[in-house]
Amino acid sequence: MPIRSADEYIASLRNRKLRVYLFGERVEEPVDHPVIRPSINAIAETYRLAEEDPELASATSSLSGQRVNRFLHVTESVNDVVMQNRMQRRLGQRTGTCFQRCVGMDATNALYSVTYDIDKTHGTPYHERFRSFVQHMQRENFVVGGAMTDVKGDRSKAPHEQADPDLFVHVVERRPDGVVIRGAKAHQTGCINSHWLLVMPTMRLSAADRDYAISAAVPVDHPNVLYIYGRQSCDSRALEGGEIDQGNAQFGGQEALIVFEDVFVPYTHVFMDGETEFAASLVERFTAYHRRSYVCKTGLGDVLIGAAATIADYNGASQASHVRDKLVEMAHLNETIYGAGIAASHESKPTSAGNYQCDDMLANVCKHNVTRFPYEIARLAQDLAGGLMVTLPSDADFDSQVTGPILRKYMATRPEVSVDNRRRVLRLIENMTLGRNAVGYLTESMHGAGSPQAQRIQIQRLMQLPQKKLLAQKLAGVSEGGTDKPDERTR
Amino acid sequence: MPIRSADEYIASLRNRKLRVYLFGERVEEPVDHPVIRPSINAIAETYRLAEEDPELASATSSLSGQRVNRFLHVTESVNDVVMQNRMQRRLGQRTGTCFQRCVGMDATNALYSVTYDIDKTHGTPYHERFRSFVQHMQRENFVVGGAMTDVKGDRSKAPHEQADPDLFVHVVERRPDGVVIRGAKAHQTGCINSHWLLVMPTMRLSAADRDYAISAAVPVDHPNVLYIYGRQSCDSRALEGGEIDQGNAQFGGQEALIVFEDVFVPYTHVFMDGETEFAASLVERFTAYHRRSYVCKTGLGDVLIGAAATIADYNGASQASHVRDKLVEMAHLNETIYGAGIAASHESKPTSAGNYQCDDMLANVCKHNVTRFPYEIARLAQDLAGGLMVTLPSDADFDSQVTGPILRKYMATRPEVSVDNRRRVLRLIENMTLGRNAVGYLTESMHGAGSPQAQRIQIQRLMQLPQKKLLAQKLAGVSEGGTDKPDERTR
Amino acid sequence: MPIRSADEYIASLRNRKLRVYLFGERVEEPVDHPVIRPSINAIAETYRLAEEDPELASATSSLSGQRVNRFLHVTESVNDVVMQNRMQRRLGQRTGTCFQRCVGMDATNALYSVTYDIDKTHGTPYHERFRSFVQHMQRENFVVGGAMTDVKGDRSKAPHEQADPDLFVHVVERRPDGVVIRGAKAHQTGCINSHWLLVMPTMRLSAADRDYAISAAVPVDHPNVLYIYGRQSCDSRALEGGEIDQGNAQFGGQEALIVFEDVFVPYTHVFMDGETEFAASLVERFTAYHRRSYVCKTGLGDVLIGAAATIADYNGASQASHVRDKLVEMAHLNETIYGAGIAASHESKPTSAGNYQCDDMLANVCKHNVTRFPYEIARLAQDLAGGLMVTLPSDADFDSQVTGPILRKYMATRPEVSVDNRRRVLRLIENMTLGRNAVGYLTESMHGAGSPQAQRIQIQRLMQLPQKKLLAQKLAGVSEGGTDKPDERTR
Amino acid sequence: MPIRSADEYIASLRNRKLRVYLFGERVEEPVDHPVIRPSINAIAETYRLAEEDPELASATSSLSGQRVNRFLHVTESVNDVVMQNRMQRRLGQRTGTCFQRCVGMDATNALYSVTYDIDKTHGTPYHERFRSFVQHMQRENFVVGGAMTDVKGDRSKAPHEQADPDLFVHVVERRPDGVVIRGAKAHQTGCINSHWLLVMPTMRLSAADRDYAISAAVPVDHPNVLYIYGRQSCDSRALEGGEIDQGNAQFGGQEALIVFEDVFVPYTHVFMDGETEFAASLVERFTAYHRRSYVCKTGLGDVLIGAAATIADYNGASQASHVRDKLVEMAHLNETIYGAGIAASHESKPTSAGNYQCDDMLANVCKHNVTRFPYEIARLAQDLAGGLMVTLPSDADFDSQVTGPILRKYMATRPEVSVDNRRRVLRLIENMTLGRNAVGYLTESMHGAGSPQAQRIQIQRLMQLPQKKLLAQKLAGVSEGGTDKPDERTR
Repeated sequence: MPIRSADEYIASLRNRKLRVYLFGERVEEPVDHPVIRPSINAIAETYRLAEEDPELASATSSLSGQRVNRFLHVTESVNDVVMQNRMQRRLGQRTGTCFQRCVGMDATNALYSVTYDIDKTHGTPYHERFRSFVQHMQRENFVVGGAMTDVKGDRSKAPHEQADPDLFVHVVERRPDGVVIRGAKAHQTGCINSHWLLVMPTMRLSAADRDYAISAAVPVDHPNVLYIYGRQSCDSRALEGGEIDQGNAQFGGQEALIVFEDVFVPYTHVFMDGETEFAASLVERFTAYHRRSYVCKTGLGDVLIGAAATIADYNGASQASHVRDKLVEMAHLNETIYGAGIAASHESKPTSAGNYQCDDMLANVCKHNVTRFPYEIARLAQDLAGGLMVTLPSDADFDSQVTGPILRKYMATRPEVSVDNRRRVLRLIENMTLGRNAVGYLTESMHGAGSPQAQRIQIQRLMQLPQKKLLAQKLAGVSEGGTDKPDERTR
Repeated sequence: MPIRSADEYIASLRNRKLRVYLFGERVEEPVDHPVIRPSINAIAETYRLAEEDPELASATSSLSGQRVNRFLHVTESVNDVVMQNRMQRRLGQRTGTCFQRCVGMDATNALYSVTYDIDKTHGTPYHERFRSFVQHMQRENFVVGGAMTDVKGDRSKAPHEQADPDLFVHVVERRPDGVVIRGAKAHQTGCINSHWLLVMPTMRLSAADRDYAISAAVPVDHPNVLYIYGRQSCDSRALEGGEIDQGNAQFGGQEALIVFEDVFVPYTHVFMDGETEFAASLVERFTAYHRRSYVCKTGLGDVLIGAAATIADYNGASQASHVRDKLVEMAHLNETIYGAGIAASHESKPTSAGNYQCDDMLANVCKHNVTRFPYEIARLAQDLAGGLMVTLPSDADFDSQVTGPILRKYMATRPEVSVDNRRRVLRLIENMTLGRNAVGYLTESMHGAGSPQAQRIQIQRLMQLPQKKLLAQKLAGVSEGGTDKPDERTR
Repeated sequence: MPIRSADEYIASLRNRKLRVYLFGERVEEPVDHPVIRPSINAIAETYRLAEEDPELASATSSLSGQRVNRFLHVTESVNDVVMQNRMQRRLGQRTGTCFQRCVGMDATNALYSVTYDIDKTHGTPYHERFRSFVQHMQRENFVVGGAMTDVKGDRSKAPHEQADPDLFVHVVERRPDGVVIRGAKAHQTGCINSHWLLVMPTMRLSAADRDYAISAAVPVDHPNVLYIYGRQSCDSRALEGGEIDQGNAQFGGQEALIVFEDVFVPYTHVFMDGETEFAASLVERFTAYHRRSYVCKTGLGDVLIGAAATIADYNGASQASHVRDKLVEMAHLNETIYGAGIAASHESKPTSAGNYQCDDMLANVCKHNVTRFPYEIARLAQDLAGGLMVTLPSDADFDSQVTGPILRKYMATRPEVSVDNRRRVLRLIENMTLGRNAVGYLTESMHGAGSPQAQRIQIQRLMQLPQKKLLAQKLAGVSEGGTDKPDERTR
Repeated sequence: MPIRSADEYIASLRNRKLRVYLFGERVEEPVDHPVIRPSINAIAETYRLAEEDPELASATSSLSGQRVNRFLHVTESVNDVVMQNRMQRRLGQRTGTCFQRCVGMDATNALYSVTYDIDKTHGTPYHERFRSFVQHMQRENFVVGGAMTDVKGDRSKAPHEQADPDLFVHVVERRPDGVVIRGAKAHQTGCINSHWLLVMPTMRLSAADRDYAISAAVPVDHPNVLYIYGRQSCDSRALEGGEIDQGNAQFGGQEALIVFEDVFVPYTHVFMDGETEFAASLVERFTAYHRRSYVCKTGLGDVLIGAAATIADYNGASQASHVRDKLVEMAHLNETIYGAGIAASHESKPTSAGNYQCDDMLANVCKHNVTRFPYEIARLAQDLAGGLMVTLPSDADFDSQVTGPILRKYMATRPEVSVDNRRRVLRLIENMTLGRNAVGYLTESMHGAGSPQAQRIQIQRLMQLPQKKLLAQKLAGVSEGGTDKPDERTR
């Protein structure tokens, strides 16, 4: 029976006997662990939004012929790609963190067209298998996670050149009915909160890396899969009992190391196996989608702008011209990110397989701004918050009978502002600029979907420099060597 | 007979006996004046592109039922708005300057819906008159210029409060068959190269400014209209005879002061007269369109990037990592502008009148980036150009029998690079960063369609701060005073 | 007997029976508390440096005639001011955090000249009292902390207008032999680790605020003084037992709320009492000194640049041109801060009292850059660190027999790089950009010694705009109204 | 008889029969050429300032034992280096342009110590010769220009590898009494306005480049020296007759190509001849001095800030908060440049020869900011100026009886503001951001004393990365491989 609600989603995660390790110990039930639960709540919002606003967060799939969560939808129109961005921004606004489902959505759309292309070249059956897999996910309304980023070892060496061959996930055995894979994928978003994982190669491969050209679906609860939880700034505040110091007690992100300890995958779930020449296009299509998916951060930006405006109100500073100007600057930067992202989606084109692929240049430009502007927005939020954001005593001090009354006396500002609300908003800003969700709002903005230099390399490839030179040469009246007619399709 | 080509356009401008003053003298025939001609050539490209690429630069209008130049088209779909941006970028690439027709296009689209709204309220016949006017323009394939920015006098005073009432264009007499207007419009782009001008109020007006709430069409060659040409950096190089020093000898922009010396306008050409409460919405719809029209500057950016890349080649520096990185940065900034602009167009919505209006926030964000990024792109272009850009001797020195050979000996770089081509590219970069077209690429990018602070005010209005505060308060767990449900339609 | 070493300093803090509260409980012995101890270690370095490099970190005082720690020295020359900056940078390099003694040093130098000026006007005995106090501190080699920033309540109201008069520290009783003060000072750096506190008013005061114009020395262990510790990002990692996850296990900063619960101060320790007209100059002289003291952050910048370079080495990326370029940019920004700061010190002038006061404009410029550049340096450090910085499992996971070996297998990079060293450097970058010392490197850089807008207001006051206008008007040939001769002493 | 005044300086330039070419023709008398004269006026200010403020602009030289213009002074103390910066800023304020004498001053100080070092190694007599030369210059109170930057040809080849050996200045003949040099130096500041030129090699040389390792003094009026004037943006406005359109009619910069057509130099004026291994240190010492000399641009910045503030006044916008904020930002950036520059001077150290050399790192940091901040200051000035800056009609239009009255009617703002003053200030801003002095304020700021990448390379060399790594490793607790004690002298 498919998952029909946020609550059913949470219930579906129980009793899976996952091997999850955190703070040196195996976690009995991740759903009930206070550090993990906020990340589950964040994904649950993707179900809740689909219930509350089906237009925004679900779509009718011609694959399964049914209404499906938009995260499971293979795009059938430009509007489908655009709607992903709208949904992502809304979820960012609702959770103030990473809601973890974009990797799966983007991997699904990238694999959909790449499997088609492989089959055209090699006569393989990957596309049909993949369609069946997606139909299955849609029917059950599952969460699909991705598993792309290998741990990589010595970055100056190819996968097959590493001292330890396991430093990239690879096939260690081929059986009549399937393959066995080994290796680890680093900092995988939301993996423990998913039902299935889509394993993909992490980069361009050469023929010598054949065993590394593997793409496959693996159930999260496969017994040979091990998860080691990554720690986040201030993660242990969730263990303290208080609520306010957490800043955003309800929602958080999740990243973990996934270790594949010789996992058997039947061929029905294998979508690439050895076709090294398609690794690059899989990575490129996925990252094009995924770099534009970082529009989600504008939803977090909305929250942070709102928090900064609120604390300025509480401090009685909201009418100061410099405060208003800083809020405008924050909004301007936030919308600049949104503009490039939504433009990339609007400029989508159909693939050979029939789904829609966003504009590569604009997607890279969007993500590249995401590696810069959230840091500046965060800086401005800290400016408006004031120093108390980092010197506020703890929940326990406010709860103490000795220090609580003293703190409430001295932390008062205007009579209509409650000291606790002031604390709550300061802690939210701390949470998003230094604490748990700063991981998602800042560092993940920097490195997720590729570090800044990866975007610059892609922009360099896409910027059509020869045509731009011809444009200039024509206007300058350069004759010799400039006889070619400029191809004016330069963006 | 309608204008059918670029050449016919140029011919149509002859013998109009305009009263144009430049460098203290009346210009006999603007078409033949070396300072003015490049600006005419730039508009001529809008005709040439419509011939060469009708898909891009023309459209079928349901108003006149015929194929019309896109600059004369009332948008009938989202795609029509998007195509404007594509055409603008292309024309920026082809001319490297301001091609001057966007004001008319954007004014046409703004007046189309505002006249409709006025009529709904006041039962006036403006919309039908305006449709007739547009049909006329389409049939003749004319250039329509705008005339919005008043000279403004003391900026702390309203129009009716000025010491001299003429400091804003206003109605000085009402006759049975029309009105008489007086005043001046400052720095009007391409006005002398147009056939008709659309006069519009420059800002929000109060009831006391009734006579200033005037919108009307005036033929450019009306005998009571006087034009005083604005001078541009390096304008007189066009008078020197040489070609290379001009940088871009073929194309330039144009801005002039238009003086209305008691111009009679028959009512058939009056589209607003006294409805002060609609002045603000006319200005806002026009600027929303027009701020997004600054996507044209990405076409100029393409040229400047190409010029910078070419000069790096000529200097033998194109493989230096810092050179490549600067080119990538220039492209990234350029595409960031494009992203927000094209997104504003993609997010257009229909007006009550049926045409399409772009997204206001993204249009402002686009323009606000235009007030910043071209300056940085220009700075990087100067970095790559090297100091010779500003110390190169003149055309005459290169043509001189004494100094020419010496200069050619010492300005040589690599054998395959001609010294003249090197000069041409350096002069193009000078032209776009200091010279005539720096006016269009930089200062007009700053102030055209409203100075930076105008965008910030508009962003502040549109940024939905109350909803953003609620988003933050909800996540922070703020209770008191935060009981309102956040309206999640926050962008 | 004076304190003679870092160890003796630490010993001197024991058994003081301070009333310090942290995490809701009274701290038995701050010296032994794992959260507090790193901040004590940081101050101890100021003693250690004076031992190891007396030229740098001590000076001969003509007040006491003896060699004293430079933090206790009243400047007697320009070089004395410059040497403060050199010492501050070195200590930043040694500790990677805030070493907390600058407030006392700067307060001492500000009070030295302001007490002199008050006495000149009012015939009061403050200066002599203050000299005696400083001599006492020098003889004992004590740590002097400052206590300036009031909690402020409703920021739109003056001290005497607050609903609760205690929201600014003030005199509640005057006795024959001294005064009684009440109130609280917020986020006071290093207060618990000091021996004496210098209480000062927080801002410009009017005559009605007479009771708030109080400056006095109070022993840290006065029984009526209460301390409530401010919590920092990731503070509780110090309680976990592991060392690596702390990032910088040895050193940290400290900020606490100081509550004066009717503290009696004998007149010998009162240095201002009611002279409201001198509050502004005390604040201005202090902040001029203190804004330039933020040169300390360039020492932290050195550490962070070194950490980023190290992790690039470990990842095998140190030869990538973009990596080198980012390191250069970090150094450039860091040295830009240093330049303005050391320039402010070099441009010091003697006060009437004979000590030296740094240049106000350059000090503000230094601090204003400190509110911007460390954020950008931190962003670049996160760029070079890679995403693992925020997804690395905990110390306990690495220590676990189950997960430890797996983690060590998969976190390996180049054979010569130990996984633990890689973790250590990543955790240090986390510590300085998100964790405990991000408080000092980022948020304190933003708000310490005044928030950004405070510097802008001061720059506006000091920028000599009328003279600048005259310079321009003279060159432009403006005649009327511009007859004044420009005072060319414009900076 | 020495030059004793600005007027005598100008007189000293007459009748020298220089071979100067401009706009394709030989200039009869440069002193009277309207394009050249403003650049002469700018240097004349260096004499005038020495008269009016001898403390600032002159010094007592122990070489000649007399009071000499500071531009001719070999620094004898740290204060001498600092005073150069103060003088430079003042002259920037007085002229609003490049006053052209810094190259000679910085070359003198660099050659002073390098000749000393060469002599120590090679037993050559360069230092004594050079002292005699300087004494001669001081006695006559001459202007000394530099001549360093070669035209360079193919940048991927060393001097001796060029197709044409003359693309770097070199010795073509050695005679018993001197050498003959040939080649050209590009964009040489103020050369025609000087009395003597100091020829120096342009870059690091290898042994194979022996003939290129030549430093010598050449009289400007040597018959075998030819000058070809570089054209500047808007240069021909000086030929138009009007004053206002020039923006800054009195002062301008000068850059020209110097061609050495087999110039004989007696050995008394040869200061390096073949000692290739000292070319690098000559270049480095010169550029260290010269990069810090760009503090002059803060004087231009003062003028531009003043102009922007004036135009805001004229427009009635000076109280708008965004206007004040932009002026503060301009001042902040300007003072940031000043801080690093003056700090470099304050941190000077004596050379072996006894004169003082500024701090290399801070000098590079200063110049690197000069390649960025003037562009941003100029952008903000254009923001405050408004669009009229680039659309204002010409002087002739304002002088015309037809258009003059109309323009004066419509360009009026507040009654107390004269339209001509408004024009003057707008034209000054145009002059400094697009026109003649934009060359000095912007492009020369970019490339003078080395392009941005040259500073980055030098910063990379000086940033002591190994020590910084050790600082980080120590705090992180890195053990293996990190056993070296960190050298804490890291800046």
